[in-house]
Amino acid sequence: MPESRIGSIASAPRTSSASYEGRIRPERFTGMTELRLAKPLSLTQFGVNQVRHEPGAWSSLRHWHAVEDEFIYVLEGNLTLVDDNGAHELGPGMFASFPGGEHNGHHVQNRSDQLGVFLSVGSRRPGEETIYYPDEDFGPIHK
Amino acid sequence: MPESRIGSIASAPRTSSASYEGRIRPERFTGMTELRLAKPLSLTQFGVNQVRHEPGAWSSLRHWHAVEDEFIYVLEGNLTLVDDNGAHELGPGMFASFPGGEHNGHHVQNRSDQLGVFLSVGSRRPGEETIYYPDEDFGPIHK
Repeated sequence: MPESRIGSIASAPRTSSASYEGRIRPERFTGMTELRLAKPLSLTQFGVNQVRHEPGAWSSLRHWHAVEDEFIYVLEGNLTLVDDNGAHELGPGMFASFPGGEHNGHHVQNRSDQLGVFLSVGSRRPGEETIYYPDEDFGPIHK
Repeated sequence: MPESRIGSIASAPRTSSASYEGRIRPERFTGMTELRLAKPLSLTQFGVNQVRHEPGAWSSLRHWHAVEDEFIYVLEGNLTLVDDNGAHELGPGMFASFPGGEHNGHHVQNRSDQLGVFLSVGSRRPGEETIYYPDEDFGPIHK
């Protein structure tokens, strides 16, 4: 019989994928913690991370995905989604989507003075995916 | 320029997919509300619902997916995951996964006396998917 696959935030492993392992603009990612929820429980078709932001931290570089859908849901605090259209304030129970292939560079910043927490879901299509970084001086990254 | 795709729970549309449009065991789904978050914001690769349970309500019939991955994350209250291994209590910040193809019939019940709320994420693979219902007297449903 398959085991039950249950986890909790208290024991979720950290990842550093969105902060580029500290190699790029490391000062922006101080105070940002990503916890990986779905991959350790054997899911392969999409990933789920909980992203925790101290004031001032960014979630990632501003980016868009060639093929993978992405979705975020705010759990706690007030966060700012920055995209090609400007800045959008998001509070608990607000969410945003980023369809694969849509050229709208986006990321999340915490411009408040309190902790901000969101869930991030992204489909996983390794071998098909390219990520574009409109604000950076390097080219797209293929996954 | 693509529009920003932002939503909030207060304005998310209801769906009744998991309650079978009231056709099957309707008494179990009184008090269960599903809000659809991702599809109205143009995502196609996975769905995200917020599921709200009054005491006594079920999330769905006990089921498992032939190919689609599924993930749940508890936002509020205390809920009971029931699967082939028995009953598992889940509180806020706890989560569970159900890999596609794993024969473990599962659903969520609210056995508490308070509202329970969770997010449900499922990959969308129409044309490939079959759902099995081990407790019911009808056969699998192809999607």
